[in-house]
Amino acid sequence: LAAHLGAVIKGDPEIVIRGVCSLDKAEAGHLSFVAKKKFLDAVPGCKASALIVPPELKDLDFPLLISEQPSLAFARAAQLFAEPPFLAPGVDPRAYVAEGAVLGPGAAVGPLAHVGKGCVIGAGSRIYGGAYLGSNVQVGEDCMIYPGVTILDSCRIGSRVIIHSGAVIGADGFGFAQDESGRHFKIPQMGYVQIDDDVEIGANSTIDRATFDRTWIQEGTKIDNLVMVAHNVVVGKHSLIISQTGISGSTRLGNHVILGGQVGLVGHIEIGDGARIGAKSGVNRSVKPREDISGIPAVPHKEFLRNAANVRRIDSLKLELRELKARVHQLEEKLSEE
Amino acid sequence: LAAHLGAVIKGDPEIVIRGVCSLDKAEAGHLSFVAKKKFLDAVPGCKASALIVPPELKDLDFPLLISEQPSLAFARAAQLFAEPPFLAPGVDPRAYVAEGAVLGPGAAVGPLAHVGKGCVIGAGSRIYGGAYLGSNVQVGEDCMIYPGVTILDSCRIGSRVIIHSGAVIGADGFGFAQDESGRHFKIPQMGYVQIDDDVEIGANSTIDRATFDRTWIQEGTKIDNLVMVAHNVVVGKHSLIISQTGISGSTRLGNHVILGGQVGLVGHIEIGDGARIGAKSGVNRSVKPREDISGIPAVPHKEFLRNAANVRRIDSLKLELRELKARVHQLEEKLSEE
Amino acid sequence: LAAHLGAVIKGDPEIVIRGVCSLDKAEAGHLSFVAKKKFLDAVPGCKASALIVPPELKDLDFPLLISEQPSLAFARAAQLFAEPPFLAPGVDPRAYVAEGAVLGPGAAVGPLAHVGKGCVIGAGSRIYGGAYLGSNVQVGEDCMIYPGVTILDSCRIGSRVIIHSGAVIGADGFGFAQDESGRHFKIPQMGYVQIDDDVEIGANSTIDRATFDRTWIQEGTKIDNLVMVAHNVVVGKHSLIISQTGISGSTRLGNHVILGGQVGLVGHIEIGDGARIGAKSGVNRSVKPREDISGIPAVPHKEFLRNAANVRRIDSLKLELRELKARVHQLEEKLSEE
Repeated sequence: LAAHLGAVIKGDPEIVIRGVCSLDKAEAGHLSFVAKKKFLDAVPGCKASALIVPPELKDLDFPLLISEQPSLAFARAAQLFAEPPFLAPGVDPRAYVAEGAVLGPGAAVGPLAHVGKGCVIGAGSRIYGGAYLGSNVQVGEDCMIYPGVTILDSCRIGSRVIIHSGAVIGADGFGFAQDESGRHFKIPQMGYVQIDDDVEIGANSTIDRATFDRTWIQEGTKIDNLVMVAHNVVVGKHSLIISQTGISGSTRLGNHVILGGQVGLVGHIEIGDGARIGAKSGVNRSVKPREDISGIPAVPHKEFLRNAANVRRIDSLKLELRELKARVHQLEEKLSEE
Repeated sequence: LAAHLGAVIKGDPEIVIRGVCSLDKAEAGHLSFVAKKKFLDAVPGCKASALIVPPELKDLDFPLLISEQPSLAFARAAQLFAEPPFLAPGVDPRAYVAEGAVLGPGAAVGPLAHVGKGCVIGAGSRIYGGAYLGSNVQVGEDCMIYPGVTILDSCRIGSRVIIHSGAVIGADGFGFAQDESGRHFKIPQMGYVQIDDDVEIGANSTIDRATFDRTWIQEGTKIDNLVMVAHNVVVGKHSLIISQTGISGSTRLGNHVILGGQVGLVGHIEIGDGARIGAKSGVNRSVKPREDISGIPAVPHKEFLRNAANVRRIDSLKLELRELKARVHQLEEKLSEE
Repeated sequence: LAAHLGAVIKGDPEIVIRGVCSLDKAEAGHLSFVAKKKFLDAVPGCKASALIVPPELKDLDFPLLISEQPSLAFARAAQLFAEPPFLAPGVDPRAYVAEGAVLGPGAAVGPLAHVGKGCVIGAGSRIYGGAYLGSNVQVGEDCMIYPGVTILDSCRIGSRVIIHSGAVIGADGFGFAQDESGRHFKIPQMGYVQIDDDVEIGANSTIDRATFDRTWIQEGTKIDNLVMVAHNVVVGKHSLIISQTGISGSTRLGNHVILGGQVGLVGHIEIGDGARIGAKSGVNRSVKPREDISGIPAVPHKEFLRNAANVRRIDSLKLELRELKARVHQLEEKLSEE
């Protein structure tokens, strides 16, 4: 275990760990972790059999796994013990799988799931009960497609992708042309959605298909719940998009971008690698690599903080101005008296 | 009826009421209500057989039920006549119910619903067609689980809970640990969601499971549509959470809290009992009991209003400052002439 | 084709078009389009067989269809070639269709779809697999009800309506009456939702049923993903509602209104014909026809821009005020010396 986590053992290396748990709920046989000094108060009462700690806590009187990155080591340990929801391999007789759909070895399709014609499901992937795949959907290996997910025709999903319940992949983008009377004519959305390896998509999020070509979520990016990704958007690698954020059409995000919750991006802009957008921001321009911005409209984060502080100071500005006026008035009177 | 509503009858006590309706659409046999004087104009043309009114309208020339709280009395009356969507008791043959799942007397499972192994459904609860319950889900008595709801493994639902279509209970929380290269490793989400008695959850809302332990919605709280409740959040009793609001991980709400629409709360804060957060606010700090706050970032509501007014006054501040400068300039010239 | 699009041919009128595509991906046999001069760079390498262009580009050396409104002409051309997702006409044997439900000629119900008792589905309408219609739902002709859509009891859908996956039509409105102890009693929601002809509803949007009477989306209006429309709202004709916007109860929109993304409207207000609300705005008052407003709270769009600019100028105001104070101080000293 220590080797797998890249951690150093302090204490009995023969302790058997059969699960992971939080500090306050852990029992014998559990591995827990202390990420920071401020959580030390909970250690004395902890019943865990071992703790993952950062090097600064290496003197704790407890069986330890010392790691430079205790959160990461703990995530890896937990992955060893976590069990995904049960699903028997093979096709459940109450599922609908169209003729000609191809399932890899160990793939599973649950009760009341729908797999359309031309679908290809990779080895070990799980299509849980109640999930819906349209026609010609490709799913790589070891994916988890949760109950209630909808993946529409021709979308392409990589390997080890996790899509949570209620997410909709490949609905039509929102594209219309107006006639002279103001009626809206649908521009057919003829593209698809491509989701690369190791991406995770949250519950009830929507990723629309492209007008042409593809909407594209690249490797390792994690998307939270209720997020809207519009047609033709490209999201780079290893980015994080927090809940209830919306990205308008054709906008492109780089790699390692972080969008806070409830952010809105207009269409046709570029967000550079490593940029971070504060929660609730409205972004109406392209953002440079590693820029930190916030606000509506978004400005550099420091400026956002100063603006907010300044707004709270308008009252005192008004007061100062009034006092100064009075002083000027006195001067004027004094001079006119002379 | 009057006794059930705690109201006083004025007029013929033998009138038979067979339904409730709005003032303008009511017909003979209907009970309607007038909450405030300003709606009195609609009374003369109203065809209802009786009206619920507050004491101040007790002299209306109409068969009346006089109540201190006419809205509440009307809600109670309407509950007597409202019919939930039809669902035959028992398990529909086109539903999937895993072996060993236990249904109480009068419970119903509709066509194409999914009830996983180990589920326990209380007496009188309705699992509508197309709803999905994973494994080991507990549902109390007299619940309404609407079509298209997903409740994932091990979640616990109290009694008289209503969950609307498309809501997702128990998807994974959004938790990742980063390695040195910026890749995100999933922290397995091993907890569950607990929803207590008399809670209502709106359509397409998402309540994520805890990392450990539980995400917890306490008794009597009502949640609107498209709301996001993140992992390990605790929402107290009898709170109201309006549409499209998001609550970040581990934040705790007290009792009788009201969150307006499209509010965002950061993680790891506490919102005191009876606090009210204005629509569209972004809250980045804990909030005291009965505090009213608004804005991004949120400040006391009165300050928010004054700040907004002050921003609109900057133009006049600029003007006043310019005028004052001119006066000072005149004084300076006058003095230097002397 | 040219006649259908109302365009003028320049070049060989015998060219056969078998599809439409973007400029950069088009191949022989494709029709593409150039909406504006700035996209001209892509034309030299384009392999399309013909282009739709505006009159200002009529001298391009390419087979052309010249149209005053190239986007509209292209939308119409694309509609000729676009194929909706495959669904065999008739009722799939794995669907659930209640006895007495009526399907028009050419209507289709896919695998694992649910059509409740009393439903009437018009000619040519498609209820895709996994969609759910409750009891007494009316659907007009040539509608597309996508997988995972839920339409609850008694809702009425016009003709040529498109409802995308995960949308929930007719969940209960959010209405409660409070008792003296602060408990919330449900006000039964006894109305329905009416959606008129040619409306499109985005993925995972929710349109709640009215308390009484109807929530009403009128002809030709297009609604994006994750939008919330509360009980008793009326949205007029040919309006556009962008993603993640929320409209509170009983608010009324006129015709040709545009709501940007992530907008919030309070309840019981009126938005006039042709009004436009900027993205992320919070609207707490009625809006006049053709008004353009933005901000939280929303003000006329020009004022919003000036306010944002003014906030950024508070720093310089503070500086100017300090300088002026110093000058006044000097004057005061000078005068007191005399």
